[in-house]
Amino acid sequence: MRGVCLLLNVFTEPKKLKRGPQVITLKDAAMISGLTGLQSGDVVVDAGAGSGWLAIYLGSIVAPLGKVVSYECREEFASLAEKNVARAGLSEVVEIKRADVFCGISETEADLVTLDLADSDKAVATAFATLKPGGWCVGYHPCFEQVKKFVLEAQRVGFEHSQSIEVIVREILVRDYGCRPATKGLTHTAFLSFERKPKEK
Amino acid sequence: MRGVCLLLNVFTEPKKLKRGPQVITLKDAAMISGLTGLQSGDVVVDAGAGSGWLAIYLGSIVAPLGKVVSYECREEFASLAEKNVARAGLSEVVEIKRADVFCGISETEADLVTLDLADSDKAVATAFATLKPGGWCVGYHPCFEQVKKFVLEAQRVGFEHSQSIEVIVREILVRDYGCRPATKGLTHTAFLSFERKPKEK
Amino acid sequence: MRGVCLLLNVFTEPKKLKRGPQVITLKDAAMISGLTGLQSGDVVVDAGAGSGWLAIYLGSIVAPLGKVVSYECREEFASLAEKNVARAGLSEVVEIKRADVFCGISETEADLVTLDLADSDKAVATAFATLKPGGWCVGYHPCFEQVKKFVLEAQRVGFEHSQSIEVIVREILVRDYGCRPATKGLTHTAFLSFERKPKEK
Amino acid sequence: MRGVCLLLNVFTEPKKLKRGPQVITLKDAAMISGLTGLQSGDVVVDAGAGSGWLAIYLGSIVAPLGKVVSYECREEFASLAEKNVARAGLSEVVEIKRADVFCGISETEADLVTLDLADSDKAVATAFATLKPGGWCVGYHPCFEQVKKFVLEAQRVGFEHSQSIEVIVREILVRDYGCRPATKGLTHTAFLSFERKPKEK
Repeated sequence: MRGVCLLLNVFTEPKKLKRGPQVITLKDAAMISGLTGLQSGDVVVDAGAGSGWLAIYLGSIVAPLGKVVSYECREEFASLAEKNVARAGLSEVVEIKRADVFCGISETEADLVTLDLADSDKAVATAFATLKPGGWCVGYHPCFEQVKKFVLEAQRVGFEHSQSIEVIVREILVRDYGCRPATKGLTHTAFLSFERKPKEK
Repeated sequence: MRGVCLLLNVFTEPKKLKRGPQVITLKDAAMISGLTGLQSGDVVVDAGAGSGWLAIYLGSIVAPLGKVVSYECREEFASLAEKNVARAGLSEVVEIKRADVFCGISETEADLVTLDLADSDKAVATAFATLKPGGWCVGYHPCFEQVKKFVLEAQRVGFEHSQSIEVIVREILVRDYGCRPATKGLTHTAFLSFERKPKEK
Repeated sequence: MRGVCLLLNVFTEPKKLKRGPQVITLKDAAMISGLTGLQSGDVVVDAGAGSGWLAIYLGSIVAPLGKVVSYECREEFASLAEKNVARAGLSEVVEIKRADVFCGISETEADLVTLDLADSDKAVATAFATLKPGGWCVGYHPCFEQVKKFVLEAQRVGFEHSQSIEVIVREILVRDYGCRPATKGLTHTAFLSFERKPKEK
Repeated sequence: MRGVCLLLNVFTEPKKLKRGPQVITLKDAAMISGLTGLQSGDVVVDAGAGSGWLAIYLGSIVAPLGKVVSYECREEFASLAEKNVARAGLSEVVEIKRADVFCGISETEADLVTLDLADSDKAVATAFATLKPGGWCVGYHPCFEQVKKFVLEAQRVGFEHSQSIEVIVREILVRDYGCRPATKGLTHTAFLSFERKPKEK
């Protein structure tokens, strides 16, 4: 089991949720890794790092031999992310890179690129070049308009659009005296769009 | 990336879905591994194997050094599961065990026990003994009565109840001429219940 | 348009919601009247009144010639409900009756009986006798167990079970700079069960 | 109870659903009338009629003294709608008008205008002029781009935006041997947008 598990689990309980803008919840992180088939040894490029949660989550799966490089050009976020990575014991696996993903990605042959940026459609062509054939680019977007721009641009640069989804987790209260779904909770975080680089023939 | 990825991805598309009774979909498998923090090297006990999909999915995450032992007492299912495991290239990681989990689990110090059985509440005490401190037992149940019996029994034998959830994936159709959620689709597979064995003090 | 409209509309905005236990929201009230085909002139029996919201809502539809009789045996609730009915201008249409529905319903030939009670399965036989052929009994229950007891008892006493549903309203934020579902909100109020008294042959 | 009730109830059961493009389901019709507070005696303008279902549903609520005028410029749809209105016994209440709503609405002092048109944003100014102060204009749109254009245009011409919502009805299967949400079903019909003409001061 991952050492980060308890740390990450706070995301599943809306009542404990203290989130900055666009922090990726555990439900979405689980679906990103689950639907792309991420596994130990894989190489991931992530942008932007924000507080580093998604990079940590993905790092815990690709560990010990894989790698996550997370781009972040805002210094205060990069510092925070680095501290969180160290706290999770993943400094050997997750690198916070102080650079702007829109200016290019130096890594190659990546298995997965995750984009959590307001204008991530502008990084799609770069992501395509970075990925190995069969690799995945996943966009995380709160708004419909972002999803549309991202998916259309992804198709334009050569990705095969797999699907755009919204993941809704309903908590069921289980008590001896009566079971029911919880009354209040998170109703939306973001849409996830899965784009795949075609395999070579 | 996992070799099983394309194989598993059929589960995300309801139109292609050919499921036997209680086959675990990719969305649920992703949430089971994601919320328990499963990672490379972990030991998993799974029951029953059914056609082996969940065992294969979990095996692809714990590979190459981890282990999944999947119990199945019906010979025709065990044979099918073994074929699917071989097809996924995971015979070194996933073992289909022809035995009844209600008669006991011989593995110890497991990180995760997954129970997809009609009467899985009867296997909860055995699961508790099998797990290491901090390990997870996850129940997969289509009906709420099963969830209730499982969770109450889990608490009785010493588990801490984390949460019971339902995972709903909504597909968003993205087209230049108009975006909207898909019109028809899967509306329920099962409830997932996460029970944790307390850590030692 | 109904004078009660603005009064009722507070229920659609979770942020303004101040609810006592089991107050029926506008989304559920709309579905109850909509799926039973309630219209002007109809006769409704409601139990228990609570703060009177459902009785007021239904009264505004059956007005001016229809009737809603709402049973309430707790004096403080009956007083509150009567004040709310007067405030909505529906005193001619909605009667708050200080009586226990479990002791019998004196009205006959009702078009609709609505039951929002913890043990409403115990009032199902009485509801059946009160309804005209083709009339509807609708149960409102937060918990699964209540739904099950109610529906099984309804079938036992002669009702045709139409359906049990859960109504989920997702708010979509529409802004020039970006549209998306709201982040937080109501995730469950109750299940609605629709039982129909068979028409005479 | 309305004579149309059984007719309309087919819409609640996805398995029986045979719909043309954009036929409004009972769940959405119920929410339109419920959230606008429609009642007996009200005047409604509807466009386009399509097969007439929404006009019939609203007509059954405003009957016997109210009125629904439903615009339809395609002759084959207008004929079908008229037949369905007659079948529902509402010819005195619901008028199918062979005219294009984009060319103007001759009715005034309406309580409700419902727009189920691909380009309904182009009819919003006309709807505003048709409504009495406090009246509602409700747009029905499958795609989010339509919602956005409609709501922004409604605000531009003077409407107060109340809310845009999506109504999801989950069916719960209730059986003695086990209760659970239905496995498959409708997952999206359309978004509903509620715009209100300000009351005079």
